Amino acid sequence: MTQRLRLNKHADRRLKAGHLWIYSNEVDTKETPLKDFAPGETALVEAANGRALGVAYVNPHSLICARVMSRDPDMRLDRSLFVHRFNQALALREQMFDKPFYRLVHGEGDLLPGLIIDRFGSVLVVQLNTAGMQHLADAIVDALEKVVKPEVIVFRNDTGGRRQEGLEAQVEVVKGVLPDEVLIEENGVRFAVPVIEGQKTGWFFDHRVNREWLNRQVAGKRVLDVFSYIGGWGVQAAANGASEVLCIDASNTALERVARNAELNGLHEQVAIGEGDAFEALAALKAEGEQFDVIVLDPPAFIKKRKDIPNGERAYARLNREAMRLLGRDGLLISASCSMHLAHERLVEVVRGAVRHQDRHGQIVFQGHQGPDHPIHPAIPETAYLKALGVRVFRD
Amino acid sequence: MTQRLRLNKHADRRLKAGHLWIYSNEVDTKETPLKDFAPGETALVEAANGRALGVAYVNPHSLICARVMSRDPDMRLDRSLFVHRFNQALALREQMFDKPFYRLVHGEGDLLPGLIIDRFGSVLVVQLNTAGMQHLADAIVDALEKVVKPEVIVFRNDTGGRRQEGLEAQVEVVKGVLPDEVLIEENGVRFAVPVIEGQKTGWFFDHRVNREWLNRQVAGKRVLDVFSYIGGWGVQAAANGASEVLCIDASNTALERVARNAELNGLHEQVAIGEGDAFEALAALKAEGEQFDVIVLDPPAFIKKRKDIPNGERAYARLNREAMRLLGRDGLLISASCSMHLAHERLVEVVRGAVRHQDRHGQIVFQGHQGPDHPIHPAIPETAYLKALGVRVFRD
Repeated sequence: MTQRLRLNKHADRRLKAGHLWIYSNEVDTKETPLKDFAPGETALVEAANGRALGVAYVNPHSLICARVMSRDPDMRLDRSLFVHRFNQALALREQMFDKPFYRLVHGEGDLLPGLIIDRFGSVLVVQLNTAGMQHLADAIVDALEKVVKPEVIVFRNDTGGRRQEGLEAQVEVVKGVLPDEVLIEENGVRFAVPVIEGQKTGWFFDHRVNREWLNRQVAGKRVLDVFSYIGGWGVQAAANGASEVLCIDASNTALERVARNAELNGLHEQVAIGEGDAFEALAALKAEGEQFDVIVLDPPAFIKKRKDIPNGERAYARLNREAMRLLGRDGLLISASCSMHLAHERLVEVVRGAVRHQDRHGQIVFQGHQGPDHPIHPAIPETAYLKALGVRVFRD
Repeated sequence: MTQRLRLNKHADRRLKAGHLWIYSNEVDTKETPLKDFAPGETALVEAANGRALGVAYVNPHSLICARVMSRDPDMRLDRSLFVHRFNQALALREQMFDKPFYRLVHGEGDLLPGLIIDRFGSVLVVQLNTAGMQHLADAIVDALEKVVKPEVIVFRNDTGGRRQEGLEAQVEVVKGVLPDEVLIEENGVRFAVPVIEGQKTGWFFDHRVNREWLNRQVAGKRVLDVFSYIGGWGVQAAANGASEVLCIDASNTALERVARNAELNGLHEQVAIGEGDAFEALAALKAEGEQFDVIVLDPPAFIKKRKDIPNGERAYARLNREAMRLLGRDGLLISASCSMHLAHERLVEVVRGAVRHQDRHGQIVFQGHQGPDHPIHPAIPETAYLKALGVRVFRD
């Protein structure tokens, strides 16, 4: 029989609001000790008064000690639940996108806490970020076979989230044979995606809509793409008529892939690459007197935890100030942040400060967010993390 | 010689950050009494230490007693300044839009505090919302002649902002002859706009990008457009393949224009109209057992002043709850607010509550804002006011 997990008085409020997380200090551990649960084990969650609230999986070693998988206390956590959820998730993506390149499952946002699945056509890349999802790996693979029928399934289980859950890193192809190049199309531009060696699942689908917006602005412009990774912004800008694109990244491997992706689209003449630390590269470009019409700043998360906020905000501020010095007259800055802990208002403050520091004027003409394949759960602010501001900058 | 307006110690901080407003309690009225200024008069703004900060116009009777027009203390507030600013503003719109239908000047966001100009092709509709802009009316009209060469200029000086500034309401055609129908195109759909009798300037360009997003979601869907005004959302939905659209508004005149706009696009069979109070109409539709695939809630500002926040939030919550009852399975709710005082997070909370009230699940798949012809000044939060959430709603 499924073990019960009883909450303290009033600790059911967040769940009733729709949230899916239970923190370890919310559990009535006298009644239901967390140590009685194995990592990943299923529990029937009940309020202090004994009323059943739903079914969760438990990790006694994690601060978030349980995540609700269903509000129906009779639901079993098995293949059939995953089939249902995957069908729901797939219906949304098929409504939104013409082609099978998208995030198929966005964890809590798709009511599947701890599970990420990116779809690159017939290749699925899965991240099992919690002990609970690790425990359910077979049911997940079975359900994917039923709903998506992929040729290849890759586990990219090398995330920071797993470490916090006490899980080992593991990257493997669990079904099929990975082709030499995994190809996708985004906003009409082709990319080869390194699903094994690349960052995260190999590609960042979350900026698709923001890149789509920028693509309309770049015809004839000279574009600088900082933290370019494999060229998501830069190569698309070139494909949309940018006269010249310079992609800067610290990783030579990533830059080789930029070159390959430019070539895939017949754009090798428009796209240049430059290896180096972003701050050093910006300083060097300034010293050389370079100017750009459009600059994209899409850095990695400078704020990973709440305690990083002050230092992280300073890093965003410095980055934006340094970039602003390279922006030509009537320039456009795209300033992005994937730090959930950086509030929208703080990013506005970062660009405001950078604009004023140069004694210029700024107009925010675009406020972008993660695309619809990264749905936000309205009760879980943590599911909303991506921001991109488009700022027109001019001298008066 | 231009009068000086001296600020209190530390009262220059906001201006140094880029803001354009001066509040009456920030003025050193011993040194430079506000009563020495006529409404709309120009002033040289200086810090407590005498350093010149820029040129502003003054209204001694307003809480915001001065608004900065230029940070250059030598700038004269004349036709040539407006020509410069209008050219800056026009360049942004021409970069963003193919056709001459947009907000040409968005007040503070275009460094022209208190001035709104909407462009309907060769017809310009101007709102002078402050005594300062009223005082500069001739220079504004002259500069528009130079930069835009419109056939018609209309003053829609009947705004709430003018009352606060002690200005009279005044609506008049100050240049040319207004045609029988002022026609625009938005997202490829044609509309006739009532620039004299309609709300505000006659049209709400601010939702263009949000409607563009919705237009991609409505093929084959049954759509309800609440607070439809003259059909901006509803007629566009019909033009983009919605099987059926019902536009609800309290104004019969507005609904007649919905019908006219549907007819202009050959869509009179797809677009129905219903007159009535929104809450009553939603209740009546529920009583009749009606269901919709897509519901658009684009109400007038329920929160006009800070003190309205609690009541206003309750009104948004009630509206969203009532609409949610009419949403069919796997439905899409567009929940908008043009209240600057309703924070983004609060609108998320409103839709979260409405979803939970119906024991459904929600996914925020779109976060929309005012379009690029309504630029946000990064130092002036008041210039950012529009929000639109796209929420997919389903039963588990």
